[in-house]
Amino acid sequence: MPKTASQLGEHGLLKILQQYCSPVVGDDAAAMGSTLINHQMVVTTDMLVDEVHFSDRTTSPEDVGWRAAAVNLSDLAAMGAKPWGMVMSIGLPSNTEIDWIEGVYRGFQECLQTYGSELVGGDTVRSPIRTLSVTAFGQVPIDRLIQRHTATIGDALVITGNHGLSKAGLELLLHPEQYPNLADSKDFRQELQRYHQRPTPRFDAIAILDNIYQTLIKESANLPAHPSELVLSGMDSSDGLADAIAQICRASQVGVKIDWSALPISDAIKSLAGDRAFDWVLYGGEDFELVLCMPWQIATKFVQQLPTSKIIGEIIDKNSEDNQINKLEMRSTFQHF
Amino acid sequence: MPKTASQLGEHGLLKILQQYCSPVVGDDAAAMGSTLINHQMVVTTDMLVDEVHFSDRTTSPEDVGWRAAAVNLSDLAAMGAKPWGMVMSIGLPSNTEIDWIEGVYRGFQECLQTYGSELVGGDTVRSPIRTLSVTAFGQVPIDRLIQRHTATIGDALVITGNHGLSKAGLELLLHPEQYPNLADSKDFRQELQRYHQRPTPRFDAIAILDNIYQTLIKESANLPAHPSELVLSGMDSSDGLADAIAQICRASQVGVKIDWSALPISDAIKSLAGDRAFDWVLYGGEDFELVLCMPWQIATKFVQQLPTSKIIGEIIDKNSEDNQINKLEMRSTFQHF
Repeated sequence: MPKTASQLGEHGLLKILQQYCSPVVGDDAAAMGSTLINHQMVVTTDMLVDEVHFSDRTTSPEDVGWRAAAVNLSDLAAMGAKPWGMVMSIGLPSNTEIDWIEGVYRGFQECLQTYGSELVGGDTVRSPIRTLSVTAFGQVPIDRLIQRHTATIGDALVITGNHGLSKAGLELLLHPEQYPNLADSKDFRQELQRYHQRPTPRFDAIAILDNIYQTLIKESANLPAHPSELVLSGMDSSDGLADAIAQICRASQVGVKIDWSALPISDAIKSLAGDRAFDWVLYGGEDFELVLCMPWQIATKFVQQLPTSKIIGEIIDKNSEDNQINKLEMRSTFQHF
Repeated sequence: MPKTASQLGEHGLLKILQQYCSPVVGDDAAAMGSTLINHQMVVTTDMLVDEVHFSDRTTSPEDVGWRAAAVNLSDLAAMGAKPWGMVMSIGLPSNTEIDWIEGVYRGFQECLQTYGSELVGGDTVRSPIRTLSVTAFGQVPIDRLIQRHTATIGDALVITGNHGLSKAGLELLLHPEQYPNLADSKDFRQELQRYHQRPTPRFDAIAILDNIYQTLIKESANLPAHPSELVLSGMDSSDGLADAIAQICRASQVGVKIDWSALPISDAIKSLAGDRAFDWVLYGGEDFELVLCMPWQIATKFVQQLPTSKIIGEIIDKNSEDNQINKLEMRSTFQHF
């Protein structure tokens, strides 16, 4: 039995990978089904590199695949879009174990099936470093696109869930010895690690916004075709909660007043991070929650229907002395390079 | 002035790259314009790795960018599609020179502008090896998709241009000392090298097929909605002419009889390759011509309108003793790994 990519050869490898693909694969490009009327295409792409974005020390191949899919799906959710199809290219050293490759595709497919997408194409190439590149397509009704630059003064600032948990999971994976009090609570440890290894794109939040939109239309027959009160702003918090808030405010040329007492800090974060708890919540990153700005009327309905969500502040004039953007950005010197 | 990616930092780099992007860039994903009615989306992706798919010895950064765009555009042309938008992710070592990065984007943009596409998104990440990953989207009328599995017995086998020229260009770049008789003919050398460095996606062929289709519709008011005589089969010859013919025949479960006397071998190939001329033409690869199977009626019109194209054979029963697939495949043990 061949064990590595070079032993298997390209055709052998493709044969194995085809079981994870939609049947359309085989031509120079994949032809995808027709698009929906009155919808826009949305596209996003991410490259993941071994020892930069994942590591054998912290991430199983299945989790690498799941994450590669989930980070892209989260970008679609952040635009208000529903997933459609995906392509994944993979660069592999010759001695990469087939078990690892198959694990990646298994995890990838698991995530796609969970959220109703499918793999429609890709490329396999030789590379000195394991590299994944995923591109995801989605569709969103033309008047329901969520963008960063449309936040309006008076909007409520809403998060779909707790932050800092992915950071906590990563800490436990990298430095288990620093948290000996967790030695006996395996379930708790695994739950936190799972936040890091298996991020959840928040399509449930998009579905709830859909519901609210439909209800508003029913309640008000006079609702305009493009009701401005339904233009949401937002993005995901993959680069950290503080970064997301700052980016929305900068793009929309507004300020923000955060209700610090409303910002949820889970007991897990408190016990693990101690006095760094706020730091983990604001700058931990990779939580893949949605950070949304919406009229209070909608925000109130939204948090009722999505129990994990919370209103944590309000969009204000950027020249107001209550504007906290500078405070949030103080630590935002994070650089990928 | 910063000279490398790490000196510039991610935000600085993104600022430079934004001048090559469509203005839609900035959100988690790019929202693309509405799709055309009665068209299908087509998507393709390629990963290019330093010292595997390009090299500073043979390829300027501008050519790396052009090629990255062109190989994907060629895949769209091979499906009969017209280009729409593209995303490019780039993985870079910290010490990558900004001049190189900008050169890549310049060449990429030049190619996109030439063929009417635009860059709508991407990702920049740290990587130990320079890596590009490009995904291209196109649209094709639903009944005009070109696929590999639809070749029909009796079809003419058509190529849109000469083969082996990219291989010749690469040889001249890698081993100039082996071709001393070219020392004085700089223009000739550069022309051949250009075939390798600046491949041309054959959208001109697709436009001509469009014309022929429109004319046929005008000539025959009774033409059925999905005329079977207009179902073309084909792919591009990026992995070599022999490989393309073999793949189409295998997918369509047909055979092929090649008219060897009709197969064009340019004088350049004859003089450079000597008795390896056939080898370069059939297995050289990276020519990015289209290999198409179509009814003779259409093929005759096609080669009249596209002077570089040629009918080089016919699709026959796979069990016919004239079938030359085995002969073609004899050398096709090429493996990427």
